[in-house]
Amino acid sequence: MDQRINVITLGVRDLDAARRFYVDGLGWTAALDVPGEVIFVQVGHGLLLSLWDREAMATEAGDVHRGGEAAPLTLGHNVGTEEEVTAVLERATAAGGAIIQPAARRDWGGVSGYFTDPDGFRWEVVHNPGMTFGADGSISIAPPS
Amino acid sequence: MDQRINVITLGVRDLDAARRFYVDGLGWTAALDVPGEVIFVQVGHGLLLSLWDREAMATEAGDVHRGGEAAPLTLGHNVGTEEEVTAVLERATAAGGAIIQPAARRDWGGVSGYFTDPDGFRWEVVHNPGMTFGADGSISIAPPS
Repeated sequence: MDQRINVITLGVRDLDAARRFYVDGLGWTAALDVPGEVIFVQVGHGLLLSLWDREAMATEAGDVHRGGEAAPLTLGHNVGTEEEVTAVLERATAAGGAIIQPAARRDWGGVSGYFTDPDGFRWEVVHNPGMTFGADGSISIAPPS
Repeated sequence: MDQRINVITLGVRDLDAARRFYVDGLGWTAALDVPGEVIFVQVGHGLLLSLWDREAMATEAGDVHRGGEAAPLTLGHNVGTEEEVTAVLERATAAGGAIIQPAARRDWGGVSGYFTDPDGFRWEVVHNPGMTFGADGSISIAPPS
């Protein structure tokens, strides 16, 4: 199994609400929009975000609410400066997201903040000077000092 | 806010168990491994999977168990043939994952199955003839027929 992720699928309660946030609010372009079913958005080189109606998802993926707790996870959006962290958090708020952690300086030397989308999925907006994304797709990470 | 995801962070209960599954089991290479804290694995062009100790994660991301249900989401791994779907599911099982949905033909014309990692995070292994990932990073998706 190659170390590769192609699609991140979020099971959404209300696809119209997800569209209002991601497409209308953030201004993202859908690669495919099937009303009532699914919206695909390309979010990287060979990478899709899939917003899938939660009921439809359960018919294929099985019980999508396994366990008694929300899954602890974030989708990370890296930016080049500290100022951009704040700007992106403001943009997400304007689109209908909720700030759950304001931008703050972190022990590892960067700045990050968190917002949630209408379904509560958590995004991290981060400026990490130790993490470099090359134009060729390579990533370098400095170990903690 | 650009339509871009750089990092997918999973909050793990036991980082050693996560390492046994992803690094030892699946044979993936860590870009950075900080025992007791975090493991980064590059899983695409400019894309990282971050396995972050759940307690450490909560100090930055806040309460990571918001809400009373597991988040419905999957991480998708696309392969070129139906046979590969089965092969990857077997590989994941051998590494310590659990099959939650065996490979099955789907209404939309492909084959998919699901496994979970040691923390219960859900992966979809899928052959979708209507979804093409170009070498240049572009993705084309055929609308449902």
